[in-house]
Amino acid sequence: MALEWTQVQKQRLKELNASKEQLNLVFESHADRDRAFQQQERLLVNQAKKKLSEFREVQRRPSLCELESKLVEALTEKGFVQVITPTIISKASLAKMSITDDHPLFSQVFWLDKKRCLRPMLAPNLYTLWKDLVRLWSKPIRIFEIGTCYRKESQGAYHLNEFTMLNVTELGLPENKRHQWLEDIASLVMDTAGITDYRLVTKSSNVYGDTLDVIKGFELGSGAMGPHVLDENWGIIDPWAGFGFGLERLLMAREGTQNVQSIGRSLSYLNGVRLNI
Amino acid sequence: MALEWTQVQKQRLKELNASKEQLNLVFESHADRDRAFQQQERLLVNQAKKKLSEFREVQRRPSLCELESKLVEALTEKGFVQVITPTIISKASLAKMSITDDHPLFSQVFWLDKKRCLRPMLAPNLYTLWKDLVRLWSKPIRIFEIGTCYRKESQGAYHLNEFTMLNVTELGLPENKRHQWLEDIASLVMDTAGITDYRLVTKSSNVYGDTLDVIKGFELGSGAMGPHVLDENWGIIDPWAGFGFGLERLLMAREGTQNVQSIGRSLSYLNGVRLNI
Repeated sequence: MALEWTQVQKQRLKELNASKEQLNLVFESHADRDRAFQQQERLLVNQAKKKLSEFREVQRRPSLCELESKLVEALTEKGFVQVITPTIISKASLAKMSITDDHPLFSQVFWLDKKRCLRPMLAPNLYTLWKDLVRLWSKPIRIFEIGTCYRKESQGAYHLNEFTMLNVTELGLPENKRHQWLEDIASLVMDTAGITDYRLVTKSSNVYGDTLDVIKGFELGSGAMGPHVLDENWGIIDPWAGFGFGLERLLMAREGTQNVQSIGRSLSYLNGVRLNI
Repeated sequence: MALEWTQVQKQRLKELNASKEQLNLVFESHADRDRAFQQQERLLVNQAKKKLSEFREVQRRPSLCELESKLVEALTEKGFVQVITPTIISKASLAKMSITDDHPLFSQVFWLDKKRCLRPMLAPNLYTLWKDLVRLWSKPIRIFEIGTCYRKESQGAYHLNEFTMLNVTELGLPENKRHQWLEDIASLVMDTAGITDYRLVTKSSNVYGDTLDVIKGFELGSGAMGPHVLDENWGIIDPWAGFGFGLERLLMAREGTQNVQSIGRSLSYLNGVRLNI
């Protein structure tokens, strides 16, 4: 007989950030299993308390905030300019991204009223800024934003209703340098996040052109380039390249965390540690 | 005859961050005024372009983000622990703050559905964390959050729909040290923000107890202390002190900016500079 954890046990162990190995243990009898659960839970609770104590005494900033600061430093160092834009955006700007009723993302948008919603991505705001900046600044225009985006997600292991995106963009670079640019940005962000052994996957799409995804077990980021079919909605004609990363996913990949909830904005977790311990 | 700017002229000069003196100029004739407008506009546009260029070449981070980083550094240095909590909160947690239908703030809340809204303040989430942390950590518990809050505001010179709050709190300090604590925090935050000549105003309220406001022309921050009538809704029994500041207002006070829109999250302004120039 090979018994697995009960649903309730497994849920609790996941909350406590048990490793894959701990979650996949099997047992010979109910008694064995329940004894093991008590042991593992105690072990994980003790680890959690220790981690929380170190957080209080030494780190004092959530890893998500620290990662944000490091990315800001690395990117401004390379000449990218940070921007911060509204999280409340218009239905019209979503439509310019082709996100209308029939788009899969549309049903995931949080609406505030008929005309306003919470941004599900950073791109529409960056397009808007591009249009002014390309008139005011010499090319290439290098801007990035790090900020909260919102999607009604299933709240699975990789999804959050509120998550933190980084979008790095360069507008007005030569077309033949875009692919290298994407590789360089992926490398810069992975180095800064402390992630090694990731994979780059190039995909071609009739609609969206070439994209470059960064994978480590799951998708960490996705790069795109233009000229792009959406550009004309924003009055953009120059070539560009841009890369989006989910910061919570970068932390998951680095820490080997099993659930993204523990790392994002939360009232149940503090810096990865479950608080009902 | 003493002519003022036309409404349209005044609006444009405000957008361009004209000083109080520039906004209050008076003229002898329409011709004088219109000539002066062209002059002032050209002057302000040139200043704006210069500022935008320095922003690109040197600063590279919005002042709002820089101020946030400085506050984080100053507070963690003093032993305060940073937290980041959800911007989407429950109707129930608003009710625990006594913000129900009959509360003036209620009509300013952005609702996502019947049960969820965008936080109009940081306090409910910090109360929630206090309750767990007071069980897990020795007292005093020192935590702070810096993050976006949302209110349907008239969008006047001092109000934004999305603004950045800092709440610094200490739970479990001696009652006789709370007032000094508030003064110390006000001083720390004002020093960090580079604001001198501010005033502290103590108010007493039957409902909310003593509060300490920081004023420089307008309200920059407001401190409160407990035991407090709301504490029992959250199961909190220890004395506490807490201070909330609006980061955009701190920047307005320091820079002498005439409109808060230019300093907050925006698509029309970049770091205080209007983009339609």
